Amino acid sequence: MIRFECDYTTGAHPKILEALVSTNGESTPGYGVDEHCEHARDMLRALCQTPDAGVHFLVGGTQANTTVIAAILRPHQGVLCAETGHINVHESGAIEATGHKVLGLPASEGKITAGQIDLYCQEHFDNAAWEHMVQPGMVYLSLPTELGTVYTLAELEEISAVCRRRKLPLFVDGARLACGLAASDVTLPDLGRLCDVFYLGGTKAGLLFGEAVVITNPNIDHDFRYLIKQHGGMLAKGRLLGVQFEAFLEDGLFLDIGKKEVSQALRLRRAFEEKGYPLFVNSPTNQQFPVLPDGHMAALEKNYSFEVWEKTDEGHTAVRFCTSWSTADGDVDALIADIQKL
Amino acid sequence: MIRFECDYTTGAHPKILEALVSTNGESTPGYGVDEHCEHARDMLRALCQTPDAGVHFLVGGTQANTTVIAAILRPHQGVLCAETGHINVHESGAIEATGHKVLGLPASEGKITAGQIDLYCQEHFDNAAWEHMVQPGMVYLSLPTELGTVYTLAELEEISAVCRRRKLPLFVDGARLACGLAASDVTLPDLGRLCDVFYLGGTKAGLLFGEAVVITNPNIDHDFRYLIKQHGGMLAKGRLLGVQFEAFLEDGLFLDIGKKEVSQALRLRRAFEEKGYPLFVNSPTNQQFPVLPDGHMAALEKNYSFEVWEKTDEGHTAVRFCTSWSTADGDVDALIADIQKL
Amino acid sequence: MIRFECDYTTGAHPKILEALVSTNGESTPGYGVDEHCEHARDMLRALCQTPDAGVHFLVGGTQANTTVIAAILRPHQGVLCAETGHINVHESGAIEATGHKVLGLPASEGKITAGQIDLYCQEHFDNAAWEHMVQPGMVYLSLPTELGTVYTLAELEEISAVCRRRKLPLFVDGARLACGLAASDVTLPDLGRLCDVFYLGGTKAGLLFGEAVVITNPNIDHDFRYLIKQHGGMLAKGRLLGVQFEAFLEDGLFLDIGKKEVSQALRLRRAFEEKGYPLFVNSPTNQQFPVLPDGHMAALEKNYSFEVWEKTDEGHTAVRFCTSWSTADGDVDALIADIQKL
Amino acid sequence: MIRFECDYTTGAHPKILEALVSTNGESTPGYGVDEHCEHARDMLRALCQTPDAGVHFLVGGTQANTTVIAAILRPHQGVLCAETGHINVHESGAIEATGHKVLGLPASEGKITAGQIDLYCQEHFDNAAWEHMVQPGMVYLSLPTELGTVYTLAELEEISAVCRRRKLPLFVDGARLACGLAASDVTLPDLGRLCDVFYLGGTKAGLLFGEAVVITNPNIDHDFRYLIKQHGGMLAKGRLLGVQFEAFLEDGLFLDIGKKEVSQALRLRRAFEEKGYPLFVNSPTNQQFPVLPDGHMAALEKNYSFEVWEKTDEGHTAVRFCTSWSTADGDVDALIADIQKL
Repeated sequence: MIRFECDYTTGAHPKILEALVSTNGESTPGYGVDEHCEHARDMLRALCQTPDAGVHFLVGGTQANTTVIAAILRPHQGVLCAETGHINVHESGAIEATGHKVLGLPASEGKITAGQIDLYCQEHFDNAAWEHMVQPGMVYLSLPTELGTVYTLAELEEISAVCRRRKLPLFVDGARLACGLAASDVTLPDLGRLCDVFYLGGTKAGLLFGEAVVITNPNIDHDFRYLIKQHGGMLAKGRLLGVQFEAFLEDGLFLDIGKKEVSQALRLRRAFEEKGYPLFVNSPTNQQFPVLPDGHMAALEKNYSFEVWEKTDEGHTAVRFCTSWSTADGDVDALIADIQKL
Repeated sequence: MIRFECDYTTGAHPKILEALVSTNGESTPGYGVDEHCEHARDMLRALCQTPDAGVHFLVGGTQANTTVIAAILRPHQGVLCAETGHINVHESGAIEATGHKVLGLPASEGKITAGQIDLYCQEHFDNAAWEHMVQPGMVYLSLPTELGTVYTLAELEEISAVCRRRKLPLFVDGARLACGLAASDVTLPDLGRLCDVFYLGGTKAGLLFGEAVVITNPNIDHDFRYLIKQHGGMLAKGRLLGVQFEAFLEDGLFLDIGKKEVSQALRLRRAFEEKGYPLFVNSPTNQQFPVLPDGHMAALEKNYSFEVWEKTDEGHTAVRFCTSWSTADGDVDALIADIQKL
Repeated sequence: MIRFECDYTTGAHPKILEALVSTNGESTPGYGVDEHCEHARDMLRALCQTPDAGVHFLVGGTQANTTVIAAILRPHQGVLCAETGHINVHESGAIEATGHKVLGLPASEGKITAGQIDLYCQEHFDNAAWEHMVQPGMVYLSLPTELGTVYTLAELEEISAVCRRRKLPLFVDGARLACGLAASDVTLPDLGRLCDVFYLGGTKAGLLFGEAVVITNPNIDHDFRYLIKQHGGMLAKGRLLGVQFEAFLEDGLFLDIGKKEVSQALRLRRAFEEKGYPLFVNSPTNQQFPVLPDGHMAALEKNYSFEVWEKTDEGHTAVRFCTSWSTADGDVDALIADIQKL
Repeated sequence: MIRFECDYTTGAHPKILEALVSTNGESTPGYGVDEHCEHARDMLRALCQTPDAGVHFLVGGTQANTTVIAAILRPHQGVLCAETGHINVHESGAIEATGHKVLGLPASEGKITAGQIDLYCQEHFDNAAWEHMVQPGMVYLSLPTELGTVYTLAELEEISAVCRRRKLPLFVDGARLACGLAASDVTLPDLGRLCDVFYLGGTKAGLLFGEAVVITNPNIDHDFRYLIKQHGGMLAKGRLLGVQFEAFLEDGLFLDIGKKEVSQALRLRRAFEEKGYPLFVNSPTNQQFPVLPDGHMAALEKNYSFEVWEKTDEGHTAVRFCTSWSTADGDVDALIADIQKL
C-alpha cells in the first residue's frame, strides 16, 4: 500500500530527526524556555520581520486553533470563517467547547472574501435584535485552505484591511503554510504585517509534530502562556519543539519541503488532467482532488490509500491525494503509470 | 402607538394577576418546593397524562433551552435543529457557552423533517472522520416554530420515531405552545408521549413570566434542579411560578388564551390576504408575516409597531405582526381598517 | 409555622405590588428598554452619584454574579473571594460553569481583607510556576456577607485601593445591600466610587424579584447586554423590573425596608443575648446566628422555621434566623416570648 | 549546572529513541490507529490484566487529566481531590475551563483518605441546600502524589470501595507511576481492578512524551476519542506514541526506569538525612524534599538546579530534588559530596 491519504504518514525529515538525536542527551529547563526554543523564536521573528512578536510552539493544530481563539474572544463573540473551515467541521467542537460559536460563511473553493466579512458585520449591527445574536469577534482563515486553495496577497490585504476597520483580529491557520508559501505570492513578512496571529505548521511538513504560533498583537500575546497550559499544550520537554524548528527554519528547509510537496502534487495533478478527470477544486498545493469514475477509484484503492471526499454524482467521486515531505519519486511514478493505465 | 411587535408588551392576564395578588401575603418556602408549585406540577402531569414526569418552572425561554440542553448532552455532542431555530440565531450563543455546537439543518418554513435527522446521523457515522466531527446528540424543535408554523401530529410522530431509533432525546421548545395547541392537531398528551422534554410557555401567553418544563425521561430529570441553580434559574420566590401556572392551567385558561391569540392573528391574516399581500410564510398561529410594499410599511409604522423581518426584494419587505393575550378587538379593527385604506 | 428561614418567603411589599398592578395594562417594548426601566436607571444613577454608569436589571443573584464575572475575566483568570462567599459555596458551580476558578481566601466572619488580596497576588507572581496557576483576575465581596457581617467604609476603601493598584476589578454582591446600608457606614455613592460593579438587591428586600447591577467601569459595561441574553437573564417583560425598582427607589423605600429588616433582627438578637446564647457571628444585619442547645432548638422548631447552620459541639447548634420586609411585629413578639420561656 | 529541578530535562531513553529512529521511515495511518499503537495497547492490557479496557495514548498529563475528567462528569458535578492535587494547583484552571469545580480536600503529605471521601459525600447529601452546591462526581488521586508519597494497596482498596459504594468513578493520575510501582505494593493489575481510569506516564520516565490512559469502565470509554480530538490531544502522527510505548513496555523497561529513578533519589535522601536535614515530606520516590538552611541552599544553587518549594521558617526552606531516567551516577556522587561538605 502506497499512502497518499494524508501528509502525516511518516516520521520526521532526516534533518529534523538528526537534530533530535544529536541533542537528545542535553539537559535543559522544561516548558519551552530553553535555548533551542529561544533561538528558534529569534529565527522566526527574523524571517517574519516581526522583531517584537510573541512566538509559541505548540504540538498540534487543533490545540493551536483552540488556544488562540480562546485568547482572543470575549464570551459573547464568535469566530467568522469559511463554512468548510477546519474549526467548523473537523475539530469535534473544540471551539464551542471553549464557549464560542463558529460563524460559518459560504465558501468558494474553501475561501471567503473581505466583502463577506464586511457584510456580515454590517448586517449584525443593523439588526434590531443584534444583542440577541453572537457578535462577530475575529476572523479565521486557512492558508492553504482545507481544499488546498490559497489566498493571494491582494486578497489577504483586502481581508486584513476590513478586519482592522471592523476591529476584528485576523488569525491565519498555517497548518500547511509551507505549501502555501510555495504556491502563493504571500510571504512570511506579509503574514507578520497583515495578521494578528498566524502559525507555521510543522507536522504536515516534515516534523514529528509542532506548530509555531506568531502573535504580533501584544494584547493577544499578553498572558498567552497561561492559556497554553490551560489547554494542555505546555509540552514538558518543550525543547523538542525548539530543536525541530531550529532545523526546519535553518537554510530555508521549510521552504524546500513545501516546494517539494507541491511539485510532487502537481505531477499527480497533471496526470489526472491528462487522463481527463475533472478536478473538484483548483488546488495549487499538496492536496489534489480529482473526480474519478467509481470503477477507477476502486482500481486505484488496491495499491494506493487516499481519502474519499464526496460523491459528486451517480458513478463519480471526488477523492483527495496528499503528498508529503517523504513522498518518493518512485511512488509518484508508479501512481502516474497506474492512472495512465486506467 | 398600537403594539404588534411581540407577544410580551403587556403585563399579566387578569386571572394570573389576581392569583399573584391574592397570594401575595402568604409565607412559603423558597425555590419552588411550596404547595402552589406542587399543585401546579400535579395539574400539568395530569393534563399531559405523564404521572411520573418531572415538572420544573423556569423564568424564561433561553434559560429553559440552555438548562435542558446542558442536562442532556455529553461534551462532544451537539444539538440538531432548524437553522432558523431560536437556539441557533437568537440566544447570543447561550448553547455554545455551555460547550455545545448547534447543528443547524436547512429548514422549510422553520421546520425540519424526520428524514433530515436520520440522514444527518447516517452521514455522521458513515464519515471516515466521524470522531473529528461533533456528534449529533439530541434534537430541538419549536412548536410553533420561530416562523409561526406548526408540526402536525404525524410529523411529530415520525420525528419521535427516528429520534428513538437513533437514541437522540427529543426536546420541544413550547415558548408559544398555547398557540400551537390551538392551531395544530398535537395535544399535551401527544407531547408527553413523544418527547423526552418539552415546555409550555407562559411568558408569551399571559403570564408575567414563566415556562413549565416537563421531563418524561428520568435520566434527564435526575439532578435537574442542580442545573437550574447553576444556570441562574432557581427563583428565590419560586412560588410565583406555581401560583401563575395554577391559574394558567385552571379550567383550560391556557387553551383559551392560545385560541384568542390565534383568532386575532387570523383576522389580521385575512386582511393582508384580501389586500393582496403575499405571506412570507404560511403561519396558522399568532405570528403573521405579510410582505408589504415599502411605502405601505412606512405608512403603517406611524401608528403601529411591528417587526421588520427581511427585505424580500427591491421595494418589498416581510414584516411580523404578533398578537397576544391582551390584543384588543378594537386595536385589530383599527389595523384592519388602516390596511384596507392603503 | 412562623417563617424566619429566609428573607424571601412572602410576595412583594405593598408599594411594589401596587406599582405592578397599576401598570399591568400598559403596552411597552420588551427586554428592558422601556421608559420604566430608563427612569429607574436614572434614579439609581442619581442615588449613586454615577451619572455615566451602566445600570442593568436582572432577575436573581446567581444570574447577576455569573454574568458580571463572565464579563470581567479572561479565560485563565479566577475570582478572589471569601471561602464562605456565595459564589464559592451556594451556586452549584455556576462560576466554574463559565470556565473560571473561584479562588477562596480564608475568611473571618465572612470577610476578607485588603492585605489578603495583596498577598495572594504577590505570591502568585513570585511563584516560579505562576503560568501554571490560575491568575487572580478580580475580587468579589458580599455586603452584607453571607454571615450578615458588613465591611466598614475604611475596609472597603482599603480593598478598593489594593484592587486598583493590582488592576483587579472589584465587584460587590449586594443581594442584601438594603440591610447593609442600614447597618454600615457605607453609602451608595461610596459603592459607586469604590467598585467597578455592584448591585442593589431587591429580591430579599421586598420585590417579587430583581437585582439592579451598577457598572461604573465602561470596559465591563461594553456589550454587557449580550452577556445578559447569553446567560438567560434578558427578561421578555423587562419593564417588570423597572416598575419595581421605580417604587423601590422612590422616597427611599429601599432604605426604609432595610432599616426595618435590621431592627426586627436586632430585637431577636437581644432576646438571644439576654437568654445567654452565644452568637456564632457578630452580625448587625437581618441574619442572626445564635448557638442553641439542641433541646431548645427542637422546641423552637415546633412553631418556627429557621435554618440549621452548623453543629458547634456535642449538644449545641448554630442556627440562622432571618427577618424580611414582611416580618410582623407580632411574630417577633411571639418568638421572643418563646425564647424567654425556654 | 547539574539539573535536579524536574524529571523532564533530557530527551528519551536510548531504547525509546532507537525505536523512533528505526521506525521513522514507515508509512502508517494517522491518529493512533496504526499497528504500533494497537500492539502497545495489547501489551498494556495484558500487563494490567484488563483485556477489555480502552487504552488511549495522549501527549501530556494536563491533557490526560482534562480529557478524562470532562468525559466523566455531568455539568453540576465536581472532582474530589487532595487540595495539593495537580489539577487543583498547577494546571492553570484547565478543569474549571471545562466547567467543573475542583473540590479540594485537606491532604496529609499529598494524600487523602477513604474516610474523607465518604464524609464529604455524606455531608453533601445531608445538607438542606445540597442542590445549591457542587455535587461530588468522581475522585482524583495521584500515585505517586505531587509530594512523592504513595498510596498503599490497602489504602487504594479502601478508597476504591468507598467510590463504588458512592458511585464515584475513581481516576488515578500516574504521571510518575513508574516510580510509584517501584516504591509501593500497588501493581498494574491492582490499578486495573480498583480504578475506573488510570494512566501510566511516559514523559517523566524516559519517553520524549506520552501518557497511556487505561479505561476499564466502558461508559467512560464510550466515544472517548471524540473528546481526545476536542481537547487537542489527537496526535496526527499518532504512531509516535505507540512506538514509544512498545519499547517502554517491552521487557519491563518502564519498571527498570522507575526503579533506577527511585534508587538515585534514595541515595540523595540518605545524604540529606545523614547531614541532619529534616525532610519536608516522607517520600519514597524520585522527588525528595529536604529542608535546607538558606545558606546551604544558596551554596548548592551554584552548581545544581532544583526547585524552591516553600519557606518553612526564618532561615530554612524546603526544596525539591528530582531524579530521572538520565540521572547519572556521577552527578549524584558529585551532589552527595557537595552536601557532605556543607
